[in-house]
Amino acid sequence: MQLLFLGTGAGMPSKQRNTTSTVLKLLEERGSFWMFDCGEATQHQILHTTLKPRKLEKLFITHLHGDHIYGLPGLLGSRSFLGGLEPLTIYGPTGLKNWIEVTLSVSKTHVKYPLTIIEIEEGVVFEDEEFIVEAKLLEHVVPCFGYTVKQKALAPELYIEKTDALGVPRGPLLKQLKEGHDVLLPDGKVVKSEEVTGAPKEGFKVTILGDTKYCDNSIWLSENADIVVHEGTFDIETAELARLYGHSTIVDAAEVCEKANAKHLIVNHISARFMPSDLNKMLCQVEKYSFPIYIAEDFTEYSWINGTLIPLK
Amino acid sequence: MQLLFLGTGAGMPSKQRNTTSTVLKLLEERGSFWMFDCGEATQHQILHTTLKPRKLEKLFITHLHGDHIYGLPGLLGSRSFLGGLEPLTIYGPTGLKNWIEVTLSVSKTHVKYPLTIIEIEEGVVFEDEEFIVEAKLLEHVVPCFGYTVKQKALAPELYIEKTDALGVPRGPLLKQLKEGHDVLLPDGKVVKSEEVTGAPKEGFKVTILGDTKYCDNSIWLSENADIVVHEGTFDIETAELARLYGHSTIVDAAEVCEKANAKHLIVNHISARFMPSDLNKMLCQVEKYSFPIYIAEDFTEYSWINGTLIPLK
Ligand SMILES: [Zn+2]
Ligand SMILES: [Zn+2]
Repeated sequence: MQLLFLGTGAGMPSKQRNTTSTVLKLLEERGSFWMFDCGEATQHQILHTTLKPRKLEKLFITHLHGDHIYGLPGLLGSRSFLGGLEPLTIYGPTGLKNWIEVTLSVSKTHVKYPLTIIEIEEGVVFEDEEFIVEAKLLEHVVPCFGYTVKQKALAPELYIEKTDALGVPRGPLLKQLKEGHDVLLPDGKVVKSEEVTGAPKEGFKVTILGDTKYCDNSIWLSENADIVVHEGTFDIETAELARLYGHSTIVDAAEVCEKANAKHLIVNHISARFMPSDLNKMLCQVEKYSFPIYIAEDFTEYSWINGTLIPLK
Repeated sequence: MQLLFLGTGAGMPSKQRNTTSTVLKLLEERGSFWMFDCGEATQHQILHTTLKPRKLEKLFITHLHGDHIYGLPGLLGSRSFLGGLEPLTIYGPTGLKNWIEVTLSVSKTHVKYPLTIIEIEEGVVFEDEEFIVEAKLLEHVVPCFGYTVKQKALAPELYIEKTDALGVPRGPLLKQLKEGHDVLLPDGKVVKSEEVTGAPKEGFKVTILGDTKYCDNSIWLSENADIVVHEGTFDIETAELARLYGHSTIVDAAEVCEKANAKHLIVNHISARFMPSDLNKMLCQVEKYSFPIYIAEDFTEYSWINGTLIPLK
């Protein structure tokens, strides 16, 4: 799993930061990637990455402000033009479906893949064998969702040298042992799953929040998360503007993670008023927190390797 | 007057070319610029120019395909966010107004300037003292307009040394002479306008066409034009694709200009299949034509200086 930031700006594109889009790469886990928000020119950003639009499986929209959705129609069209035939599901607030349909229709964009648009409520919005995605409303000037993605516990490792030693024949019994079931061998001997498997591995939990001021649902969604992506449009000195426009400071973001006992914080949605040289000052405002805190740049990628978050660029 | 190409690609953005947008800079003539089409990320392209969004006075849309309109909502919002208060008028095909209204409404984008959206028919779509803009339908797979912008004849130069010599007092009589009227001096002497003025200067005529195959209305709009901007999505070798998708080859574009007796041709809307190294080959396909032919790149600017077109970059 990797997190790739395609756009880390707020409100409008700047030369430094595009409008919001965050990619959760699940290529090893499920051969696809998921996207959270899709500001204008997200497809342009993709041109500078190795992402293939047809591998986009799910797109979660936090809210309907232009800087989070204006890149959607172009990406949907290009995904089809580039030969994408795999289904795509979009999740987001009420109003999203009509807008996408009107836009594709007026521009005579006929996508060739099955496109499903789900206008969500709070709660579980997606679940399969491997993942569960839950949404809750945050506190912004328009309805805005935060999402948490939980990978379910991974099947434990099966120690094949042990099953061999115990005389378990290669075949379906191994699968049962791996899945936690004890098995009876042809010779009447019972082999317990726990004898031949490692500890089950916890899946990861990544929380990706939309635009919001400091709020309880952010904490709820971030509870024990491995990684939290929280907006930090402003800093301490501009905290008044954050209150005024329904946004957060970097300190609000850190406080959410502290309260939620989250392990890593990545801050995005940075106001264009901050120059690259201001970022250090922002990070100093949160130096007292004991968990790692990063400010994402466009095209920064973070890799999740054995329970640790490694910035790749 | 200058023509600045913000996007010269076809269908989808590529690393080389953005989707379509062409700017007619009229800063000397009227302190503003006009735009023709607004593909996704046009506002991003503007960030790399000296254009100020609030100086955008008129926006002409040729047709409603995504690569010509998906940048509109973002630009409209940013123009307001950046303090633009001057009125903006958008001209384009039926369907444009509803789409813009739905899009601004769903994203809660409240622009602070007067925004007028005019769904046009063929004919004169704008006229004032200095300019007249006429539209005609071209032949594409959806309704698509071409536009011609005519600058009206400029007031002739008044030779002030001659009026002084003839004893015309400085004041309102000079204005009358400049405007072509003969005047009676207080001493009873008549001064003819033609004695004290130069020849009236013709204004320029620029024709900016949308996506189209070779068609008569392109020729009509380009009649004696100083500059024609014509799409050349394909070349001779891919002419079959041009026919199939309602597009032109660079040779079609040149033929239109030849028949219309136009003076300069700039080709845009170049398919991403052509690499920068292919452009010479395309230009060779039209070397028999006697007027200058350019293939526009993103950010190429052409200046109109004393009846000559000068590429600036
Ligand atoms: Zn935002
Ligand atoms: Zn086009």
